[in-house]
Amino acid sequence: MIQQIYSTVMLYLQQSLTTTVGNNLVEDFVKFNWDYVNGKQSKHNWGPLTSNLLFIAMEGNTTPCHYDEQENFFAQVVGYKRCILFPPSQFECLYPYPVYHPHDRQSMVDFERPDYNRFPKLKNAKGCEAIIGPGDVLYIPIYWWHHVESLLRGGPTVTVNFWYKGGPTTLEYPLKDHQKVSITRNVEKMLIEVLQDPKEVGPLLRAMVLGRVCPLLFEDEWVEDLKDLTKVPIVGWAKPESVLPALLCAFINLELLKFRLPEFRGLFRGPCSGTGLNPEPALEDNPLLLLRESENIQF
Amino acid sequence: MIQQIYSTVMLYLQQSLTTTVGNNLVEDFVKFNWDYVNGKQSKHNWGPLTSNLLFIAMEGNTTPCHYDEQENFFAQVVGYKRCILFPPSQFECLYPYPVYHPHDRQSMVDFERPDYNRFPKLKNAKGCEAIIGPGDVLYIPIYWWHHVESLLRGGPTVTVNFWYKGGPTTLEYPLKDHQKVSITRNVEKMLIEVLQDPKEVGPLLRAMVLGRVCPLLFEDEWVEDLKDLTKVPIVGWAKPESVLPALLCAFINLELLKFRLPEFRGLFRGPCSGTGLNPEPALEDNPLLLLRESENIQF
Repeated sequence: MIQQIYSTVMLYLQQSLTTTVGNNLVEDFVKFNWDYVNGKQSKHNWGPLTSNLLFIAMEGNTTPCHYDEQENFFAQVVGYKRCILFPPSQFECLYPYPVYHPHDRQSMVDFERPDYNRFPKLKNAKGCEAIIGPGDVLYIPIYWWHHVESLLRGGPTVTVNFWYKGGPTTLEYPLKDHQKVSITRNVEKMLIEVLQDPKEVGPLLRAMVLGRVCPLLFEDEWVEDLKDLTKVPIVGWAKPESVLPALLCAFINLELLKFRLPEFRGLFRGPCSGTGLNPEPALEDNPLLLLRESENIQF
Repeated sequence: MIQQIYSTVMLYLQQSLTTTVGNNLVEDFVKFNWDYVNGKQSKHNWGPLTSNLLFIAMEGNTTPCHYDEQENFFAQVVGYKRCILFPPSQFECLYPYPVYHPHDRQSMVDFERPDYNRFPKLKNAKGCEAIIGPGDVLYIPIYWWHHVESLLRGGPTVTVNFWYKGGPTTLEYPLKDHQKVSITRNVEKMLIEVLQDPKEVGPLLRAMVLGRVCPLLFEDEWVEDLKDLTKVPIVGWAKPESVLPALLCAFINLELLKFRLPEFRGLFRGPCSGTGLNPEPALEDNPLLLLRESENIQF
């Protein structure tokens, strides 16, 4: 709707910032405030910077709600953007596409025309909103959902982001919400691997859940029995002689099964979503764009 | 209902046949027709015999519908039993308890008073029925569901079963239905392991499925895109340098995660189901009960 009122064609550029983008941009990169970003990276024990993306968008342009698997500094250079963020605990309210779908990590909900019949839990979603302008750097934590709009009548917008690998994960209980998201992702990935057919993943998961998990979970008497299980000591973790820790480590971490997914994705017809793609491979000596550190940094 | 008409107390004996059961039974064991059972075991490439159970039941006694993870010869000695079998493909129609429940591998459906509102797919279940009497040996294939009743007014019944480990599994596509059941079991086991709390398994699975898998699966346009994936060649299997095959092997086979479950089960209050328990450890030189091989063997 919005897109058709103001323009018949919406243009959107998403470009990885490498040395191929031209000398003028490179000169900006090297003048970036390295102390600021390196300090944050070090303070929070993040992994290496993997890439910067340059986003140039027309007014009214929208990036659908999605999450990334990296820490993100989202640095606004030109124009204003409205950002709505949701924590990883909102997974069930935001209905992400299956892992093997081209829109993996993106909500199936159309925020402009939400279908509450199909996505009833969307009503329970609780996010936070920020308007960012030139000089603002918004921190988007790993696995946090973000919906981004370039404001109407604000002219084109320019943003540069900074993606960092997450810090090392420890298995401490209770697990963090983003670790649970990671677990669901790995269940889906494993099922694709072993079933060899994404079409079979849904029915198998459905068979596991329907009539078994949903009505049973909060009704039956045996749930009472389960209460004591919260007191179960953690036994059997990290036995070095067992294959189990490696298996669980693979299960909670993201790296192991990642390499197969592109094979599946390449087989989907049609373009992938413009957002939510995996970042480019890590760049050595990545030149960074100049950013003016603002007073209203959301971090 | 039935139980109260004919008896106020229903007695049911399930006893593993070891050398501790007394000389008279041992004398019967050794006279068993070894050639018959060994021949079947060899012909169908089963694993070793792990145990024999002796079942003595009163008339009207019912063993709820469940499946076992072993090949089974179910040999009727005294009295008559009605057996209803369902293939592993009926998983979704029979609503098994979660893996971590004491009634694991048993249907949640009460066959005498089926609740079709809660278990609507039960109406789609298609099984086969057999009445077995003295001398009959019913073959119950691994992962096949079986509901067993001692016929009313038939007097007490005596049955001996023979459990064999399944034959070696190969990953050939399309997977067999019982392999898919095995996969669902391992997903549940892994989730218990990594979440450390059975209470969290259901909600996590539910979040994965609700609104994502069910309405989407057969409606959206991208399902069309998925059709070509059935032609995906199997790539990346059994790369010896990768950890992936071991992981998948663990995923489809049953052994790896088995050892933890008793820890959880032991914490449930109340008695376990009288059926569907894991067999005793393998017996060396297992004496077998004499069975008359009948003409109407269901094998």
